[in-house]
Amino acid sequence: MLNHKSDLPAPEKPGTAPRRRGRVARREARVAAGREKVPQALRRIPAYTLLDEESLIAIEEQADWILSRIGVEFRGDDTALALFREAGATVEGARVRFDPGHARALCATAPATYRLHGRDPDRSVTLGGDHVVLMPGYGSPFVTDLDRGRRYASLEDFRNFVKLTYLSPWLNHSGGTVCEPVDVPVNTRHLDMVYAHLRYSTKPFMGGVTAPERARDSLDMARIVFGGFMDSHAVIQANINVNSPLVYDGTMSGALRVYAAAKQSVAISPAIFGGAMGPVSQPAVIAQTLAEGMVGIALAQLVRTGCPVVLGSFHSTMNLKSGALTFGSPEANLSTMALSQLGRRLGVPVRSGGGQITAANSADGQAMQESSMAMLTSILSGANQIWHAAGWLEGGLTMGYEKFVMDVDHCGMLLRLIEGLVVDDESLAREAYLDTGPGENFLSTRHTLRHFEQANYLSALPEAGPYETWLEQGSRTAEQRANGCWKAMLAAYEAPAIDPGVDEALRDFIDRKKSSLPERWHE
Amino acid sequence: MLNHKSDLPAPEKPGTAPRRRGRVARREARVAAGREKVPQALRRIPAYTLLDEESLIAIEEQADWILSRIGVEFRGDDTALALFREAGATVEGARVRFDPGHARALCATAPATYRLHGRDPDRSVTLGGDHVVLMPGYGSPFVTDLDRGRRYASLEDFRNFVKLTYLSPWLNHSGGTVCEPVDVPVNTRHLDMVYAHLRYSTKPFMGGVTAPERARDSLDMARIVFGGFMDSHAVIQANINVNSPLVYDGTMSGALRVYAAAKQSVAISPAIFGGAMGPVSQPAVIAQTLAEGMVGIALAQLVRTGCPVVLGSFHSTMNLKSGALTFGSPEANLSTMALSQLGRRLGVPVRSGGGQITAANSADGQAMQESSMAMLTSILSGANQIWHAAGWLEGGLTMGYEKFVMDVDHCGMLLRLIEGLVVDDESLAREAYLDTGPGENFLSTRHTLRHFEQANYLSALPEAGPYETWLEQGSRTAEQRANGCWKAMLAAYEAPAIDPGVDEALRDFIDRKKSSLPERWHE
Repeated sequence: MLNHKSDLPAPEKPGTAPRRRGRVARREARVAAGREKVPQALRRIPAYTLLDEESLIAIEEQADWILSRIGVEFRGDDTALALFREAGATVEGARVRFDPGHARALCATAPATYRLHGRDPDRSVTLGGDHVVLMPGYGSPFVTDLDRGRRYASLEDFRNFVKLTYLSPWLNHSGGTVCEPVDVPVNTRHLDMVYAHLRYSTKPFMGGVTAPERARDSLDMARIVFGGFMDSHAVIQANINVNSPLVYDGTMSGALRVYAAAKQSVAISPAIFGGAMGPVSQPAVIAQTLAEGMVGIALAQLVRTGCPVVLGSFHSTMNLKSGALTFGSPEANLSTMALSQLGRRLGVPVRSGGGQITAANSADGQAMQESSMAMLTSILSGANQIWHAAGWLEGGLTMGYEKFVMDVDHCGMLLRLIEGLVVDDESLAREAYLDTGPGENFLSTRHTLRHFEQANYLSALPEAGPYETWLEQGSRTAEQRANGCWKAMLAAYEAPAIDPGVDEALRDFIDRKKSSLPERWHE
Repeated sequence: MLNHKSDLPAPEKPGTAPRRRGRVARREARVAAGREKVPQALRRIPAYTLLDEESLIAIEEQADWILSRIGVEFRGDDTALALFREAGATVEGARVRFDPGHARALCATAPATYRLHGRDPDRSVTLGGDHVVLMPGYGSPFVTDLDRGRRYASLEDFRNFVKLTYLSPWLNHSGGTVCEPVDVPVNTRHLDMVYAHLRYSTKPFMGGVTAPERARDSLDMARIVFGGFMDSHAVIQANINVNSPLVYDGTMSGALRVYAAAKQSVAISPAIFGGAMGPVSQPAVIAQTLAEGMVGIALAQLVRTGCPVVLGSFHSTMNLKSGALTFGSPEANLSTMALSQLGRRLGVPVRSGGGQITAANSADGQAMQESSMAMLTSILSGANQIWHAAGWLEGGLTMGYEKFVMDVDHCGMLLRLIEGLVVDDESLAREAYLDTGPGENFLSTRHTLRHFEQANYLSALPEAGPYETWLEQGSRTAEQRANGCWKAMLAAYEAPAIDPGVDEALRDFIDRKKSSLPERWHE
């Protein structure tokens, strides 16, 4: 068992931390050299505020109206219904209604900021405030790469993305179902996935949620690693999808209750495609997301007061001519921006509905345009946790290896962006002007030499190079140039150390579980 | 001569204009149907404010320090030096120094907002305030498309980009040197370019600046079209490049004076590659841009009080390992954001240093990632005029036909984004919830049917489609799918009407000029 002596030191507070010009560049050099751990990113630039107070209040009132007039159904979960009834909500059949303000009041005990611990304490992160946590894509049944093409994801692919994420300096969360390993039985798949996160990475991760007993297995495995430490600290996170509109099914709310009872991190994710699981207008989608999210957070608090949560969202627009889902669209990005504001007002960490998401089938211009737009609006909105930050293609159907490394590199750029500018004597560089003059160049000034290596973010991907060279080398697109990167990373990967006793205990647990369950390949 | 009866009606003021849900969608349908004119975009969401007051003041003081301690040189332009001397600046040789605050004070007479008129009054735009003007790339010697590959640009390419821009609903400025037509003599090229803008488009445009006499020719041609209207209205714009660091060469300052004397729009564009034409740190680049920009604006005011100007910027970072210029980098984007704030404080319209700019050689993932980042930070920063909004590749060496249509489509998305959200009863859609219930879908609600067609931005580019279809059709990238778009546009292009007398006068002017000048192919 790992020795977590006590809780980790409090995170830096925005504004009080030392200035860090060139920190990213130095960080990168260290990481490249010896995989030194990269500290969690902190947003040092203002969050973008899209909506004014009046609009925010109108949306909050709409969420209250939805919850009092329409309500939310908890299907097949009498325990949840009983908890809501006891708390004073109106329960009729599976339908739960809340007086205006009631759901929000129930959310008040959720912490605004908390630590999510990694197996390696240096990999733990803070959720909330100005802290930013990036993680890879979640849930894709397919993977693709330029060598083998698109195919169903396997457990090997799952492990590969855990390893790539472990090696990525800019992703500080191992994710959950980084892809769906369809070559292992569906009813024990969670064991293989949780093991991969615990064994091949030391970053925080997500456990199984597809059935309450799988949630319990995930917690049991976490306990083998974290022991009693997890009685008072969050070491695992659960992605609780809402069956939007306005329905929680018993599987999900059951899993929610298992994680909440253990006081582990519960992320509530309404998933609304405007015009299908909610109205076609974005203000309605935003309000419905808030309403659905508050109810899940309220349930977590009723199960265990102070349960750490995340207000999530996932929303898509549609091409209203073809009916195809669209990602990174302007309308969806506006909702992303608004939801970060609303989450801050609710006082809980926010998971952005963005990420590097796209409808494209390959890591082409469309993919990176959509991904970049969704990601930058997420980051600027002040979201705390950004899922699908790397690898996502085809509306989430596919994790792409080349897309993954391109996205991760872009994550590094965005984390440099949110460091902002340090305006001080050194960065204003009067010395450099005194050393040169009008018309002269600054390449060899002392100031340039002092800052040259660390001034700019350095991409980890191969450059296109000048046109002629690029042409000679086969006019390779960025996607093609990225092909070697993930292979080199996997080749260089070394599994982090683990206590052999802990590893054996994990394997024993999995073996026992697997032998007690008949193999099932479909839910 | 066109009949501009008087100045055009004042533009809508932010906040007072009618709400326009679905306006973009409706607009698009109209445009597609009959090329109806699209009104100029207005940013209805807040500008992003990166820097706090303290940092802004530090940068402004740094600009003042540069101008008082180092100064700016005007090489080969005694008239400019005399104007500055008369205004109280210290002139020694070519060097001009300003007491702190002096250059800023000289800028005070520049208008904060003004109209830039198109040949068609309905195409006129407002520069300044919350108005947004997008224009194509500027200055590329090469063009590329997937059929013919990369090649030197010709006058035909120039005309093509003018035509494509004319047809683009989201670009409301025809640009200037949309590519460099190297198949026509260098000393009369400006005549062909200005004619193309005036004949093949009706949108505002830029004239020649590569010599004072070419500036005069451009004004003379504008006068053939606009007549006395241009004595009191801006109908042409000049791109005045600063020879950074801190030098104006006589050609550029001469051209500046020609346009300023005619009270036409003068855009000052310092061009700083951090580490070369200025220090490697972004705060210094920002302050130097402001210093160089203020001096150009000051000169315009000294030539003609109230001359309409734009504070421009163009900055690039470097890959500090390879020495290659990088575009859309986080550091450059931070400078873009800061400069919009500083321009607003100076009280003049701002041209962003961003745009859809990239170092990539083709419209691949890198190209669109870099372009999107630079463009979104430009738009959110509140920049008023965004150059290089479409077509730019290879650090500006090349205009790409496919990149152009992909960029333009993205412009449409961004202009939708800055319309923001209208939170009202209709958009909150309570009716839709009363018509459905938890677990039901919203596709056939009255609210969805009412808004279905207009809710979301509709891309003009072909969709990738579902994976299997996409695979069958050859796994075409977005760039490949865009190939047909520009060809269809050019095929559908019809030249706007022009008074035959005006056209003849323009042609006569050009013929006379050309016959009076010996052909020159190199400057």
